[in-house]
Amino acid sequence: METYTGIPEELRLAVLERIKPTAPEREKLLEIQEELASEVKAAAEKLGISGVLVKMVGSAARDTWLSGTHDIDVFISFPEETPRKDLETLGMAIAREVAKLAEHAEDRHAEHPYLNIIYKGFDVDLVPCFRVASASRIKSAVDRTPFHNDFIKPRIKGCEDEVLLLKQFMRGGGVYGSELRTQGFSGYLTELLVIHYGSFENTVNAACFWKQGEKIDIMQHTEIEHVEPLVVVDPTDPRRNVAAALSLDKFCMFIDHCRELLKSPELSFFFPAALLPLQDREILKRLESRKSAQFAIVFKTPDVVEDVLYPQLYKMEQAVAALLSEYNFSVIKTGVWSGKNETVIMLELISGTLPNVKKHIGPPVWVKVHAEKFKEKYKGADDVFGGYVENGKYVFEIRRKYPMAKGLLEDRIMSCSLGKQVHQSVNEGFELIENTGICRLKDPDFRVFLRKWM
Amino acid sequence: METYTGIPEELRLAVLERIKPTAPEREKLLEIQEELASEVKAAAEKLGISGVLVKMVGSAARDTWLSGTHDIDVFISFPEETPRKDLETLGMAIAREVAKLAEHAEDRHAEHPYLNIIYKGFDVDLVPCFRVASASRIKSAVDRTPFHNDFIKPRIKGCEDEVLLLKQFMRGGGVYGSELRTQGFSGYLTELLVIHYGSFENTVNAACFWKQGEKIDIMQHTEIEHVEPLVVVDPTDPRRNVAAALSLDKFCMFIDHCRELLKSPELSFFFPAALLPLQDREILKRLESRKSAQFAIVFKTPDVVEDVLYPQLYKMEQAVAALLSEYNFSVIKTGVWSGKNETVIMLELISGTLPNVKKHIGPPVWVKVHAEKFKEKYKGADDVFGGYVENGKYVFEIRRKYPMAKGLLEDRIMSCSLGKQVHQSVNEGFELIENTGICRLKDPDFRVFLRKWM
Repeated sequence: METYTGIPEELRLAVLERIKPTAPEREKLLEIQEELASEVKAAAEKLGISGVLVKMVGSAARDTWLSGTHDIDVFISFPEETPRKDLETLGMAIAREVAKLAEHAEDRHAEHPYLNIIYKGFDVDLVPCFRVASASRIKSAVDRTPFHNDFIKPRIKGCEDEVLLLKQFMRGGGVYGSELRTQGFSGYLTELLVIHYGSFENTVNAACFWKQGEKIDIMQHTEIEHVEPLVVVDPTDPRRNVAAALSLDKFCMFIDHCRELLKSPELSFFFPAALLPLQDREILKRLESRKSAQFAIVFKTPDVVEDVLYPQLYKMEQAVAALLSEYNFSVIKTGVWSGKNETVIMLELISGTLPNVKKHIGPPVWVKVHAEKFKEKYKGADDVFGGYVENGKYVFEIRRKYPMAKGLLEDRIMSCSLGKQVHQSVNEGFELIENTGICRLKDPDFRVFLRKWM
Repeated sequence: METYTGIPEELRLAVLERIKPTAPEREKLLEIQEELASEVKAAAEKLGISGVLVKMVGSAARDTWLSGTHDIDVFISFPEETPRKDLETLGMAIAREVAKLAEHAEDRHAEHPYLNIIYKGFDVDLVPCFRVASASRIKSAVDRTPFHNDFIKPRIKGCEDEVLLLKQFMRGGGVYGSELRTQGFSGYLTELLVIHYGSFENTVNAACFWKQGEKIDIMQHTEIEHVEPLVVVDPTDPRRNVAAALSLDKFCMFIDHCRELLKSPELSFFFPAALLPLQDREILKRLESRKSAQFAIVFKTPDVVEDVLYPQLYKMEQAVAALLSEYNFSVIKTGVWSGKNETVIMLELISGTLPNVKKHIGPPVWVKVHAEKFKEKYKGADDVFGGYVENGKYVFEIRRKYPMAKGLLEDRIMSCSLGKQVHQSVNEGFELIENTGICRLKDPDFRVFLRKWM
C-alpha cells in the first residue's frame, strides 16, 4: 500500500550520536572491568581458591551497550568438576570479598545465588558459574552466558552500531528487555537478529513480514518445534529458544513499530516524547467522554524484586477479570501499574452495575431428572422473580448475588488465585476506587500510565 | 424422586362436569348439523350442481368437543375429477347460498377459499373439498380432514371423555391450539394421543418421559425422519407429521404440565385462576425490584387474521432482538402482545445504555495487509479513543454509534426484516416506551400479559 522508503543515513547518525558511548565513556568502562577482574583474582588468591577464571560477558564485554547504561557482568568461573555446593559457597565468598570495595551489595538469586554490587557507580553482577566444555553440558542456566559471548563477539565485530540502533529502536517501542515485567527482546536476542539479518535496517524490513511462529535458526541445528510467537534457536544450544520470554503482544508491537518506522522514519520511534502525567481535569473529561466504568484496586506494593512481583500482578489481573466475567460483568480491558508504595490493578468495564434480575438457564425439560431437580430448586424459592421455558430449557429469573462490581470485588477478591506476596499484601488491605475517585491517586508515574490507559 | 400418585377419579369427574356437553347442548348441535347438511344439499340442487356430498367433520362430528364451544365443520365434497377452478367457484357458490341464512359471513382463505359463517350462534366453516379415494391422493390439505374423521370416529368410541380431559388439560397449560399464534397441540393430535396411549392418564404418564424427537407411529407405516420435537405420523398419510406445528417450547411446557399434574393432581391444572391485570403501582414496584431495562415498541395492530399476524410478530421479535445484540445490548427476553388496537413487542435488556467507548478488535498484526488496512482506518481517526495490541490483534477503542438502545431502535427498526403488514404498520408510526413509561399502556389484557412478563 505504501512505498517503503529506506532509513535515511541522517536518522541513523542522529540516533547513534545520542546512544553510542563516547571514547571517555568506553575507556572508563574498560578500566572498571579490568579493576573488577583483578579484584576477583586477588580475592580468590586471598581466600586460597584455585582454578578460578574471570570472564567479562554481556553487552559491556561485546561493545553493544548503550551510552548511559552502566551494567557489567563478571562471571567467576569454576572448573566443571567443582561440586555445586562449593561453587556456591566459594563463588559467593569471592564475590563478597570484592563487594567490600563496593558502595552497595545485595544478594540475588537466579538458579544460583549471585551478588549485585554498585561499584564506582556501575551496576555489577558477580556471578559464579561452571566452566563447562560445551553449552550442551551446562549445569546451570548462567553457564550458557560465556558461550553466548564467544559466539557473538567475533560475529558482531563491525556491526556494533546496528545492535545499538536496534536496541534503542526497541526501547522506543517499549519492547526491549526480557525481564518478566516487560516480556520483550533481550540484548542477546537483538545481537542474534543483527547477525542473522546483517543490519538494523534488514532486521526492520524482515520483521514487517514476520508471522506468528517465525523461526530463525542461524546454525540450522534443530528441528524441535516451539510454541512461542518467535523462535530464535540458540546457536550455542539447539534445544533453547532465545526468544522464549517474548510475549505475543510484544512480538506484535515490534512488528507494528517496524512498519511504522518504514512509513515515516523519524527520531521519535527511537526517542518517543515523554508522556505527561494526566491531570485531574483531564481524568474527569476522559471519564465523561468514555462513559465506561473504571475501577482501581489499590494495595501496598509487596517488597519483592520485579521478576517475582510482575508475574504475580499479571496473574492477579487475569484472575480478577475472570472473577468479574464469571459474575457477568463485561470487562473492556485490564492493566497493571506498580510504584514504590502502591500497586494498582486497573479495570475498565462496560458497566459497574447489573440488574437485580439474572437469567439462569437450566437443562432441557426432557432431561427428566436434571430438569426436575433444577426446577425443584428454583420454583417458588425466595429471590426468584419467575420461570419459563425457552428453547426447550427451563429458565428462572433469579436475584443476582452481585449486582455491583464493587460488592463482588470487595467480597471475593481474596478467593482469586493470587501469588504469595500479592496475596499477602492484598490480604492486609486494599482499596477499591471507582471512576472519579481515581483522582485520589497522585503518583506522577501512575498518571503517565493513566494517559495511555484512557 | 417423587412418588407419582394417579389422577383421582373425583378430579376427573369434577373436570368433566364442567367440560362435557350436556344432553340438550348435544341435541342442539346435532340439530344444527342436520339443518346445515340439508341447506347445503338444497343449495346444490337449487344451483343445479350435481355430485356434491356433505360431510360433517371435526370434533363436533366426533363427540370430542368441549362444552361451550360452538364450532361446526361442514365439508362440501366434490368428485375427485372436478377441475380445481370449478371446485372453488361452485363450492363457494353453494356456501354463499347457505350463508344467506346466516347472521354473518366472511370469506377466508387456506389453500383454497372457504366460507366462515355465524349460523344460529354457531361458528361454522363451509369448506369445499375433493372426494379423493385415499389420503395419499389428496389435492389440497383440507381433503385430508374427512379421512381423519374416518380414522378417529370408530377408534375414539368410548374414549371421548379422555379426549375432553386432555384437551382441557392442554388448555390449562396454554398449549392447546395449533394455530400459528399458539403453536400447540391440535384437536386431531389430542385424539391420536388418546388412541395411542389409551387414556388421558396414560398420555400424561407417558409425556413425562418424552424426549426431543419423540415419535409415535400408530400405523407403523413410515421410516421418514422428521426434525420436529414431537413426531406423530398421520395414520392417513405416512409422510405427514400431525405435530409439525408444535413448537419446541410448547412441547416442553406440556411435558412440564404433565409432571406437575402428577405431583399434585388439582383442578387448577385444568382451570388455572385468571390473572389480574397488573396495576401501575405493581409495575413500578417490579421495575424497581428487577432493575433491568424494559422497552415496549408499540404500533397499530395490522388488520389481518392471526395466522398472518403472529408469524410476522414473532419474526419482528427475533429481528429486533438480533438488532440489539448486533449493537452489543444484552437481551434478557422478548415478548409479543397484540390487542385489537395496539400491538406491543416487549424487550427486557440488561441495560438500555452502553458506554461511549467500544472495543473494536481487528486482525492479528502479522496478517500484514488486513492488519495495516485496519490500522490505517482507525488510527488517529475522529471518534477513536485509542489503540493497542491485545492477544496479537490490533484493538481500537472507537466511539459507539448507538450508546442508547432507544436511539438504535428509533433509527434502525425499519431496517429489520419485518413481515409485510407489520412493516407497513410500523412504518406508519411506532412509539418507544421505556421502563415506567409502560404504565401508559392501559389495555387490561396487556396488563395480564405484563403480570406474566415481569
